Amino acid sequence: MQSIEALRAQFIRYLQDATFKGAPSNLYEPCNYFLEIGGKRLRPTLLLLANELFESCTETAMPAALAIEYFHNFTLIHDDVMDKAPVRRGFVTLHEKYSLNTAVLSGDVLLVKAYECLSKIEEPYFKKIFEVYTKTAIEVCEGQQYDLDFETQTVVTHDDYIKMIRLKTSVLLAASMKIGAILGNASDHDADLLYTFADNLGIGFQIQDDILDCYGDEKLVGKQPGGDIIQHKKTLLMIEAERLSLENNDTQLGHYLNDVALNNEDKVKATLEIFERYAIRSFAEKCRDKYIRFSMDALVQLSLTDDKKAVLKSLVDYLVIRNY
Amino acid sequence: MQSIEALRAQFIRYLQDATFKGAPSNLYEPCNYFLEIGGKRLRPTLLLLANELFESCTETAMPAALAIEYFHNFTLIHDDVMDKAPVRRGFVTLHEKYSLNTAVLSGDVLLVKAYECLSKIEEPYFKKIFEVYTKTAIEVCEGQQYDLDFETQTVVTHDDYIKMIRLKTSVLLAASMKIGAILGNASDHDADLLYTFADNLGIGFQIQDDILDCYGDEKLVGKQPGGDIIQHKKTLLMIEAERLSLENNDTQLGHYLNDVALNNEDKVKATLEIFERYAIRSFAEKCRDKYIRFSMDALVQLSLTDDKKAVLKSLVDYLVIRNY
Repeated sequence: MQSIEALRAQFIRYLQDATFKGAPSNLYEPCNYFLEIGGKRLRPTLLLLANELFESCTETAMPAALAIEYFHNFTLIHDDVMDKAPVRRGFVTLHEKYSLNTAVLSGDVLLVKAYECLSKIEEPYFKKIFEVYTKTAIEVCEGQQYDLDFETQTVVTHDDYIKMIRLKTSVLLAASMKIGAILGNASDHDADLLYTFADNLGIGFQIQDDILDCYGDEKLVGKQPGGDIIQHKKTLLMIEAERLSLENNDTQLGHYLNDVALNNEDKVKATLEIFERYAIRSFAEKCRDKYIRFSMDALVQLSLTDDKKAVLKSLVDYLVIRNY
Repeated sequence: MQSIEALRAQFIRYLQDATFKGAPSNLYEPCNYFLEIGGKRLRPTLLLLANELFESCTETAMPAALAIEYFHNFTLIHDDVMDKAPVRRGFVTLHEKYSLNTAVLSGDVLLVKAYECLSKIEEPYFKKIFEVYTKTAIEVCEGQQYDLDFETQTVVTHDDYIKMIRLKTSVLLAASMKIGAILGNASDHDADLLYTFADNLGIGFQIQDDILDCYGDEKLVGKQPGGDIIQHKKTLLMIEAERLSLENNDTQLGHYLNDVALNNEDKVKATLEIFERYAIRSFAEKCRDKYIRFSMDALVQLSLTDDKKAVLKSLVDYLVIRNY
């Protein structure tokens, strides 16, 4: 079977060939710009990989992989609008480079173009994939809303947080793998197991992201640590630190976070000291490992050969056990 | 066969039963608010009417009608964002009542919910309808982009204008009728004829809208005349007046439109005098009538009884020959 890198390279070639050429150029040129910015192409690659595990049909699977990538980019474009983010992957975001209107409308058309890609899938796969995809797309919108809600919500529980990252991140990874499996004629049981595998892996992946933001090697992660702390983002680590602070009548964390006189570096340092006091890192690592375990539980049940299961295990390492 | 009013009433009941009830409420409550604002429910009613003309299956057609209404409302929500419109149908727009983020995300989820509705359609209709719908959704996005382009485009031709209103308005009316016909087991030929009928009718309808904005009876139209002139909107009338002004080296129109000292009432009055000079109203009426004729040409070819054709003719009167 083909390696992840080989599948990714194949997808990137397919994506390049799919560059939008039609009019109106003020609609499609921004789409091309954003799609070319890059990223890991993780979701389409996972779709193709899942397909490889069963009956490989890479060429047929390409439109589905492209649909997933279009959808993912639609969410990024609109999320950037909502977050007022100036930069994405080192490039100017769409609403900054063009305008708010361009970002809204180009995002919209990408979402519809994703469905157009899906229409290239033949029966008996089409309707099944259409339903997985649509359910997922709704969930991703819901996840984004929960994330927006967190900004003004005073208490966010662990469960709230896991639910949010599941909807916002995991379900699309899971749907990508399930769709690949469906196209590979996997049994419903295997397709569902792969969904569960990726769903839990996605949660572990996101928690790892939160951990790396505090404790990652700056050179490997590629950004200064503590960004989430500076933005006062409700990550799993912050939620737990705030919960334990409240339980211990400890007002120090709130004080640091709201202290406008404190510079960012000192704010991060002070916050990490509180994290240390409450053993937040080890809490987050345990939580991450729990979801990785759920992921592995699904993996072992798959009716796949051991060498194929090993590929999935290496995927876990690749996505989660990274950047230390 | 059921009357347009009866079909509309049935759809409104169906829409009320479909009120979103789930979480997150900050996502779905704004959707409900916007859907409840109302409007004529023209597109879903046309879908049901087209279905009645062939083998009526109103209950089965309802999810498709709802999909069209969701899609239409998605476009209105995002168009209001792009136009920075404070009011829609006498109610506060979504981004004004809630926030830009709510308007973007609620629009997004409505677009996906429209596809979820479509998934309730059975084969052999589903894939065919999915394709008509998706093609149309892309065209509507393109139409909105052309409309945005007009704001900064110095020269807009008649053809540019017709193309824009066709994409922005007509194709969704046309797709609605075609989908209704498909669900009624109409032949491909009849479904296409009905599409052509509604497509041209939609253009006539939009030109009539432009005419009424200048010459409509204030009491019947429900708004002060001249709104398009005040906003310097590139309607068919304005495009022709600008073209003829240029041809005649007549700078008066440009002078009036750019005169900030002129109050709105005087601006409208002065512009209408120029329209009078160049016989703009009769030009626009001729253009409208041309598209109505195209519409009628398609109508006569439909393999329908005369009484059913009479229903379609009454639709033309209802939509275009109105509000004088």
